[in-house]
Amino acid sequence: MTPYAIPGSAIHTNNGFWGKKQHLNATVTLPAVQARFAETGRFAAWDLAWQEGQEGKPHIYWDSDVAKWIEGVAYSILHHPDPALEAFVDRLVDKLVAHQEADGYFNSYYQQVEPQRRWQERQNHELYCAGHLMEAAVAYHKATGKDKLLKALCRYADYIDRVFRVERSAAFLTPGHEEIELALVRLYEHTGEERYLTLSRYFLDTRGTQPEKQYDFTKDDASYDQSHQPVRRQREATGHAVRAMYLYAAMADVARHTEDAELLEACRRLFHNVTTRRMYVTGGIGSTRAGEAFTYDYDLLNDTAYAETCAAIGLVLFARRMSLLEPDSRYADAAERALYNGVLSGLSLSGDRFFYENPLELDPAQPRGGWRNPLFPITRRPSVFDCSCCPPNLNRLLANIGEGVYTRWGDTLYVHQYMDSDCTDPAAPLTQRTAYPYEGRVTLTYTGDVPLRLALRIPGWCRSFTLTVNGQAAAYTMERGYAVMTVAAGAVAVLDMAMPVTYVEAHPRVGEDAGRVAVTRGPLVYCLEGADNGRTLRDIRLDAAAPVTVEEHRTFGQILRIPARRRADFDGLYRPATGDFVSLTATLIPYHAFANREECEMLVWTLADNLY
Amino acid sequence: MTPYAIPGSAIHTNNGFWGKKQHLNATVTLPAVQARFAETGRFAAWDLAWQEGQEGKPHIYWDSDVAKWIEGVAYSILHHPDPALEAFVDRLVDKLVAHQEADGYFNSYYQQVEPQRRWQERQNHELYCAGHLMEAAVAYHKATGKDKLLKALCRYADYIDRVFRVERSAAFLTPGHEEIELALVRLYEHTGEERYLTLSRYFLDTRGTQPEKQYDFTKDDASYDQSHQPVRRQREATGHAVRAMYLYAAMADVARHTEDAELLEACRRLFHNVTTRRMYVTGGIGSTRAGEAFTYDYDLLNDTAYAETCAAIGLVLFARRMSLLEPDSRYADAAERALYNGVLSGLSLSGDRFFYENPLELDPAQPRGGWRNPLFPITRRPSVFDCSCCPPNLNRLLANIGEGVYTRWGDTLYVHQYMDSDCTDPAAPLTQRTAYPYEGRVTLTYTGDVPLRLALRIPGWCRSFTLTVNGQAAAYTMERGYAVMTVAAGAVAVLDMAMPVTYVEAHPRVGEDAGRVAVTRGPLVYCLEGADNGRTLRDIRLDAAAPVTVEEHRTFGQILRIPARRRADFDGLYRPATGDFVSLTATLIPYHAFANREECEMLVWTLADNLY
Repeated sequence: MTPYAIPGSAIHTNNGFWGKKQHLNATVTLPAVQARFAETGRFAAWDLAWQEGQEGKPHIYWDSDVAKWIEGVAYSILHHPDPALEAFVDRLVDKLVAHQEADGYFNSYYQQVEPQRRWQERQNHELYCAGHLMEAAVAYHKATGKDKLLKALCRYADYIDRVFRVERSAAFLTPGHEEIELALVRLYEHTGEERYLTLSRYFLDTRGTQPEKQYDFTKDDASYDQSHQPVRRQREATGHAVRAMYLYAAMADVARHTEDAELLEACRRLFHNVTTRRMYVTGGIGSTRAGEAFTYDYDLLNDTAYAETCAAIGLVLFARRMSLLEPDSRYADAAERALYNGVLSGLSLSGDRFFYENPLELDPAQPRGGWRNPLFPITRRPSVFDCSCCPPNLNRLLANIGEGVYTRWGDTLYVHQYMDSDCTDPAAPLTQRTAYPYEGRVTLTYTGDVPLRLALRIPGWCRSFTLTVNGQAAAYTMERGYAVMTVAAGAVAVLDMAMPVTYVEAHPRVGEDAGRVAVTRGPLVYCLEGADNGRTLRDIRLDAAAPVTVEEHRTFGQILRIPARRRADFDGLYRPATGDFVSLTATLIPYHAFANREECEMLVWTLADNLY
Repeated sequence: MTPYAIPGSAIHTNNGFWGKKQHLNATVTLPAVQARFAETGRFAAWDLAWQEGQEGKPHIYWDSDVAKWIEGVAYSILHHPDPALEAFVDRLVDKLVAHQEADGYFNSYYQQVEPQRRWQERQNHELYCAGHLMEAAVAYHKATGKDKLLKALCRYADYIDRVFRVERSAAFLTPGHEEIELALVRLYEHTGEERYLTLSRYFLDTRGTQPEKQYDFTKDDASYDQSHQPVRRQREATGHAVRAMYLYAAMADVARHTEDAELLEACRRLFHNVTTRRMYVTGGIGSTRAGEAFTYDYDLLNDTAYAETCAAIGLVLFARRMSLLEPDSRYADAAERALYNGVLSGLSLSGDRFFYENPLELDPAQPRGGWRNPLFPITRRPSVFDCSCCPPNLNRLLANIGEGVYTRWGDTLYVHQYMDSDCTDPAAPLTQRTAYPYEGRVTLTYTGDVPLRLALRIPGWCRSFTLTVNGQAAAYTMERGYAVMTVAAGAVAVLDMAMPVTYVEAHPRVGEDAGRVAVTRGPLVYCLEGADNGRTLRDIRLDAAAPVTVEEHRTFGQILRIPARRRADFDGLYRPATGDFVSLTATLIPYHAFANREECEMLVWTLADNLY
C-alpha cells in the first residue's frame, strides 16, 4: 500500500498564521528576491552574453538560485495568480531553451566562464544546479501545464544519465553538493520515466564507495559532503547540513519507491541522530559556520550557532519524506519544530530581509567577522546575500506550505500539520479552522461522503488534549503519535490541545544549555530580546513558579510576560556571590520574530528560579 | 623616594609550595627544555653553520627561546648551583660572541636565512629576540659575574640605538612584538647607561604615531600589536596579549624612572581595563586563539579561552612593576591570582609538559583543530611546541619566583606575596614560615635591628584576618590594601587569614558565567575534573548550602568535596523540565593541576543550588 502525499497545490490557506505568511511571500518576498536577482545579473546570465571583463560574471550557484525562485513562482501563482510574473518566467524558460546545448547541457556559469571545464570539478555545483532546474521544471509544468521547461530538463537529465551512469565520462562520480538525487525522483514521479529513478539510486549507491575530490579547506575529510562511506552505512549526520538533508531526503524517496528496507533503516538512523543529538530546540541544524556543518553529538552552541535557514528547510523536506515511509508523529513533529522556529526566523516580518544563520543567542557587543571572532553570525537581516540560497528556498517553501499537511494511506487520512485551510484534493476532503499556533483548538470538518479513518497528530509538545466528534467525546486509539478514529460523512472533529507555557530542558549532555531552559508554548519557541529587556539577558532568571501572562500582540502574534530577576551590577569583575538582585517582568516574543526591531541582544536558553 | 625591589636572588624558598616548584624547575623543567631545544636545533643554530636544504632551519623566534632559557639558568644556579649547566651556557655565550657581527648585530635567523633582510620586516621578532638576549645578559652577569654576554648585548644595544633612534635607517620604526622596551630598561638599571632608557622611551613614544606594517591576517588592524594610537592615549588592552603585557610593563618601568605622570596614568588605566574587564578568574588573559588576543570587555569564553601561559606571566611582570610605582594591593592581588592559577596551569605536575593555552573548561568530545572547530585548545600537555615561548618563560619565572615578594620604600617594607622563605637582602631582613596557599597563617620574623614599618598585603580574596605581633594583637592601619604597623627588632608577626571555601560570581555582563560560580579557597581557583566526577560536568550543581570537606592530597595539595546533584539522562534531546536528579559528592582540585591524569572533561564555572 503506497501512501499518497496531498500536494501543496490542493491546500488553500485562509487568513491564519500560514495564510498570512504565504500572502507575504507572494506579494513581498518573491518580488524582493526577483529584484535582487535582476540587480545582481542572475537573470541576465541566462542570455549567455557575458564577456570576460564585464560585470555580472556568472557564479557556479546562480542557476540554482533562479531555479528555486521559479519553483517558488510556480507554487505561488496557483494560489496568487500573477500573469506578469508567469510571463517573466516564460521568458526565462525561453532563454534556457534557446541556450541549451544540443546534448541537453545547460549551465550559465560553465557555458560562459569555463566552457572547457564541463563535468571536471566535483565541488562546483553543476549537478546541484541541474537538480534545482528539474524541480522547477516539474513544479512549473504542474502549475501551468506548460511543458517547455520540463522537456528541456528531461533532455538534460537524459544527458546526465549518459555521462554519469552509462559512459562514466565525467571527471567525478557523484555530486559534491547533493540535490539532483531528490530532483531525479521528482522527475521520475512526474514523468514515470524509470531511468531517472535508476540514476538517482546510482548516485546514492555510488556515493562514498571511492575517494572523490574534496574542498581543500576540509582537509580531505569526505564526511563534509557525506561521501566518507556508503550512504547505507552512515549512522551520523555529518558535514554540510544542507547537503546532508538533501541527501537523506533523496534516500528516503528512493527507499520508498524501491521498497528498500536497508535504505529505510539508514534513513531512520540518520533522522534519529539529527533529531535526538544534533538539532537545536528551534529545529535549526548544522552547529558551526566552519563548513556550515554538523559537528558532533550534543554540540549545540547558541551564540555561534550556524543553523542555516536552508538546512532547517532541508530538515522539513527530509521529515516530510519520512512521513511517507511510515506513519510516526516524530517526523511531522520535527517538521513543525523547524517550520515555526528555525525556518521562519530566516525571514523578516516585513518579508524582504533574510537571515542565513539563525543563532539562538545574539550579543551585538561581540565584534563580527575579521580575525577576532570569525564564527559569530550577523545581528541584522540584510536584504541580499552574495550566496543567496536561503531567500528563494523560503519562496518555494512558503508558496507550497500545504505540502506535508496530509497523507492519504489507504482508508486512513493522516493529518500531520494544523493550518487554517481548505483542501480541494478528493483524497483529503477536509477543512481546518484554527488559530494555531496561538491556540490549541482545531476544528476539522470532513466533507467526504463515506466513513474515513482520520489520524490526527498529537504533537510531541502536547501533554493534554481533548478530542470530540460532533460534540461527543471521540473514541480513538493512539498509534505512533496519532489519535486515530473513524468518522462519518460530514463529521466535525474538534481537537483541543492544552497549550500552557512550558519550560523545556535540553539533555544533560548539551553542556551549552545546562542550568538553562527554553520557554515554549505549543510549537513556538520564545526568546528574550534586548529591545524589551535591556542588556545582559544571560543573567535574567525567570521565576518558573510564577504565573505567565500571555498577551495578544499586533506585531508578534503573542508575547509572554514572566516575573524575573537579574543581578545588580557591581564594581570589578569577580566577588563572592551575593544575593544582590533587581526585579523585572521579562517579555518574551516568538523566536522566529527576533531581530525585527533595533539591533539588540537575543536569548533563547535562559536561567530560571524555582524550576526544580 | 624611589622604591627598591628586593631581587629574587635574595629570596631563598624553603620546601613550601613555591620552593617545591622552584626545585622541580631546576631539576626537571630546565633540563627538559634544554633537551627539546637541543633536539630541535635551537642551540646548534648559534653555530651559524646552517645551509639551505639542511634540517634545523633557524626560525625567527628561536633566539628568544634560548635567551629566556639562559635567563632561567642564571636565576636557577643561584639557588641550585649546577656547574655543568653553567658551562653549557658559557659555550653558548662564546658562540654568540664569536658570531656577533662587527657592528654588534646578532640574530641566528637573519644571519643565516635572510642576511640581506636585516631590519626590513617589522613582524619578524628581530628586536624581540634582541630584547630577550639583553634580559639574559643582565641576569647572567648578576648571577655569575661573567660580563662577556653583557658586553656583547651592550654593543648590540648601542647598534640598535644608532639604527633606530639616531639614523632611523631601518625599514620600520618600532618593533612588531614588544619586549626590547622593558629589556632596555633592565640594561639601563644594570649598567646605568642613560642611552638605553632613552631608546626605550623613544620606542614607546614613537609607537602608534605613524601607520606601520601589520600582519596580513589582522587586516591591518594596528590594535593587534598596540600600535593603533600613541601608548599614552591607550585606554583598553588590545590585541596580542603577550605583546600588550610586555608593552605595559615597559611603560610602567619608564614611568617610574622618568617620573612621568602621564605614562603612569596610562598604565593605571590599562591595568584597570585588564583586571576589571578582560581577565579570567584564573588570571588568564587574551580570550581568543584568533590572534592570541584580547577581545572586548567581559568577553571571557571558557572552553575556547586562549589565556596563554606567557600572557599570564606577562600580567605578573606588569603587575610587579605597577607595585613599584605605587603601593596598592590590587597589583599584587593580580600577580597572585595569575601565579597560583593561570601561570602554573601551563606546567604539568611532572614538570616536563606544557600548556600554551589555559582554558577554563575542557571537553575532549569536542573535535580539535581542522576545519570544524579551529578555536578549541588541546586537552593534554605536550612536551614540546613548535612555538616554544611558554616553557622557557616558566623556567625564568619559577627560578626567580622571589622577585616581587618585597619592596622596600624608605622605612617601609612591603610584603606583597606570602611564600615560605628566608631573605638575605639587608633591606628585607625577614623570614616567612607558612603553608600558604593551603593555610592562611603566615609567621613573619623580623631579624633587623631597628624598628621597621611593615606593610602586609591583605589579599583581595581575604574577608577576615587577625594580626598579632609577639603574641599580642597588633595595632595596624589599612593603607591601600596593606596592613601597616611598626615592628621592633626581633618581632614575630603572625598574619592569620581565614580561608573558607568561597563561591565567586562574575560580573553580570560576563554572559558566559551567568548562573555559574567559581569555587575558590584563598588564592586558589578550583575545578571539577572528569577523572573524579565523570562526564557532563556542566550539569553538576554544587550545594552551596552544604558544608565543604577540605582534604589534604598527596598529588594536588588539597582537594574539596562538596555535595551536589546532576540531572539523570533521558531519551531524546528536549523535554519539559523535570526534577529528575542523581546525587553525588563532587570532588574539586586546584585549577592549576588540571589535566595531569587521563584525558577528561574539566570545568571551573559550575552550577550551584542554594546559593542566592
